[in-house]
Amino acid sequence: MHNHAPEGYACPFCLVAKGIENEKLRTKQSDVIYRDEYITAFITLGWYPNNKGHVLIIPNEHFENIYELPSDYSSRIHDFEKQVAIALKEVYNCDGVSSRQHNEPAGYQTVWHYHLHVFPRYYDDDLYFSYNLGYKAAVEERAVYAKKLRDYFLQREF
Amino acid sequence: MHNHAPEGYACPFCLVAKGIENEKLRTKQSDVIYRDEYITAFITLGWYPNNKGHVLIIPNEHFENIYELPSDYSSRIHDFEKQVAIALKEVYNCDGVSSRQHNEPAGYQTVWHYHLHVFPRYYDDDLYFSYNLGYKAAVEERAVYAKKLRDYFLQREF
Repeated sequence: MHNHAPEGYACPFCLVAKGIENEKLRTKQSDVIYRDEYITAFITLGWYPNNKGHVLIIPNEHFENIYELPSDYSSRIHDFEKQVAIALKEVYNCDGVSSRQHNEPAGYQTVWHYHLHVFPRYYDDDLYFSYNLGYKAAVEERAVYAKKLRDYFLQREF
Repeated sequence: MHNHAPEGYACPFCLVAKGIENEKLRTKQSDVIYRDEYITAFITLGWYPNNKGHVLIIPNEHFENIYELPSDYSSRIHDFEKQVAIALKEVYNCDGVSSRQHNEPAGYQTVWHYHLHVFPRYYDDDLYFSYNLGYKAAVEERAVYAKKLRDYFLQREF
């Protein structure tokens, strides 16, 4: 309906969801904290200086944006958003949690596969004002955060 | 679990959900664009200069934050988020849509009843950098935006 992926788009998040790694794909399976039939969650490589190790949740099937996201996927994504929020409080010991979701270039979307950002929040973290301070975290640094959350979810049923 | 509402909190969004107006409550029923058994959606009074008329979606029952939001409410809220996104594209003719959801003071929450913000987005709207430029829109101005969206939803079944 309002799609922006170029023709023949090689979707990186489809690979992440399928458990595929390759040299071009910067997200690695060591970033993944949870996967089930519907969704995959992982530590994103795009970090902000005061909110390290934030989580992306994606549907395993390809939908570009919220306009086309089916209800069953949406429910699974947002049920897990709640679980991530509770996990971030416990594992990161953060002061709060917030989320955001972007559609189309004007809405700050840059990967053409629906994704929900879930952030650990801290007093005076200036999350919104640090939007242009984003950087790519190293895979080893991401893996430390991912392991903590993966271990948390392995110990739980929900 | 991680609640911040003071004892005896007079929750403004519980009143909005129940269709109650009073002089102290700045949100009016003319702001409401949709209500069903589970959720209420309305034009918020807190506007940003380049993203006028954004929408809040709340559960009709009182839950302070995402940590305690039940799955059935979450599903209804996010199903309607999709409908609002599609409506904003059509009614506001915006270039994109994004959403955000805040928990606890460090996460920028200021009303102690779960709420999801859904924004019309425009090229170069600088939404995140205008966070401290928020202002209270007049009820008459809100009503213009609310009527358009209310009329849109009255014409549709979903």
